[in-house]
Amino acid sequence: MTPSARLHDDGSEPRLLPLATNQIPMRADAARNRARLLEAASRLVAEHGAEQLTMEAVAAAASVGKGTVFRRFGDRTGLLMALLDHSERVYQESFLSGPPPLGPAAPALERLSAFGGATLRHLAAHRELLLAAEPDPARRYAAGPRNVRRIHITTLLREIGTGGDDELLAEVLLGYLDVPLLNHLTRQRGMDLERLEAGWRDLVARITRS
Amino acid sequence: MTPSARLHDDGSEPRLLPLATNQIPMRADAARNRARLLEAASRLVAEHGAEQLTMEAVAAAASVGKGTVFRRFGDRTGLLMALLDHSERVYQESFLSGPPPLGPAAPALERLSAFGGATLRHLAAHRELLLAAEPDPARRYAAGPRNVRRIHITTLLREIGTGGDDELLAEVLLGYLDVPLLNHLTRQRGMDLERLEAGWRDLVARITRS
Repeated sequence: MTPSARLHDDGSEPRLLPLATNQIPMRADAARNRARLLEAASRLVAEHGAEQLTMEAVAAAASVGKGTVFRRFGDRTGLLMALLDHSERVYQESFLSGPPPLGPAAPALERLSAFGGATLRHLAAHRELLLAAEPDPARRYAAGPRNVRRIHITTLLREIGTGGDDELLAEVLLGYLDVPLLNHLTRQRGMDLERLEAGWRDLVARITRS
Repeated sequence: MTPSARLHDDGSEPRLLPLATNQIPMRADAARNRARLLEAASRLVAEHGAEQLTMEAVAAAASVGKGTVFRRFGDRTGLLMALLDHSERVYQESFLSGPPPLGPAAPALERLSAFGGATLRHLAAHRELLLAAEPDPARRYAAGPRNVRRIHITTLLREIGTGGDDELLAEVLLGYLDVPLLNHLTRQRGMDLERLEAGWRDLVARITRS
């Protein structure tokens, strides 16, 4: 419900809240523009990695002026944070309510098996920013996105029926989906993402004894 | 070979190095005293946890004056660090060359299964100091003790013959033996060490499909 709808059933502009009604089309437009810039940035990150992302490239990909990107996100860190937030939402929707094999229509084991690849790709795409924002050891386990993943994995393990200590098995699986570990294995040990994804599917099969 | 033995075959004191010969019995004695203090401190930590450890308690347990403990270790942090170093050495010897089930005389699967409990108890005993010394995410994987554990686990997995990607499976098992995780599960989630130890044995059975 918009402020004008709440104030005037006939749809006329409210006299005491001119800014609110003036802002409605502006804000919808701004939201659309913002989404368009973030989608362009997402495509660039998927193609070239977040390290290569520049404000200029996003402007060119979205066919807007550079100034528009700067006005919207402030600087490159602001863009990366907005992108991470946007991407985290898209990623969470994919396993909470998306189509199979990630979403609820697929059997739990299939969902769990697909979940690792989706998560590893999400983490890899935002590696740079996630590493910089990595909380200290004492706060690591309180992070919101980690909790969403933990609850999802635990729920799937219970549905599968592992016959084990599902809370602990969930921690084991969560530990595999960790940005510093991903960074270490790919950058310092030379493993590629495909190997880590295959490793996840094998790990899920072993953990669930399937 | 001691300096005096190198300089004087007849065993007399060397005239140019009086401090060196004077130091020999002193140093052996000091090493014995140091070991005695560390063993007393280890017993106290095993009984009451490192949080409860005081210089006074170590002095009383080793039947020496409080001043001796302060002279040897400087302060409580110095004592805890010496204790961690001593304990890490004893712990490493236990699985590298100790008796079964940890040491080389036992079958690899039995050794791996026993390794988790020994490591979790070692980490729990030094939780406080290990947490404070936890390296930042970029350096976490370069830590010496972690590498010793990683090589040991990888070697055992290869001996067992998992049929999987042993380097990745070793990372999964290593991730379970992590001080911040141990701290989170015991302090914030209320699990006890026995549950974590049982979880490890079950995890090893699943990972090795045994």
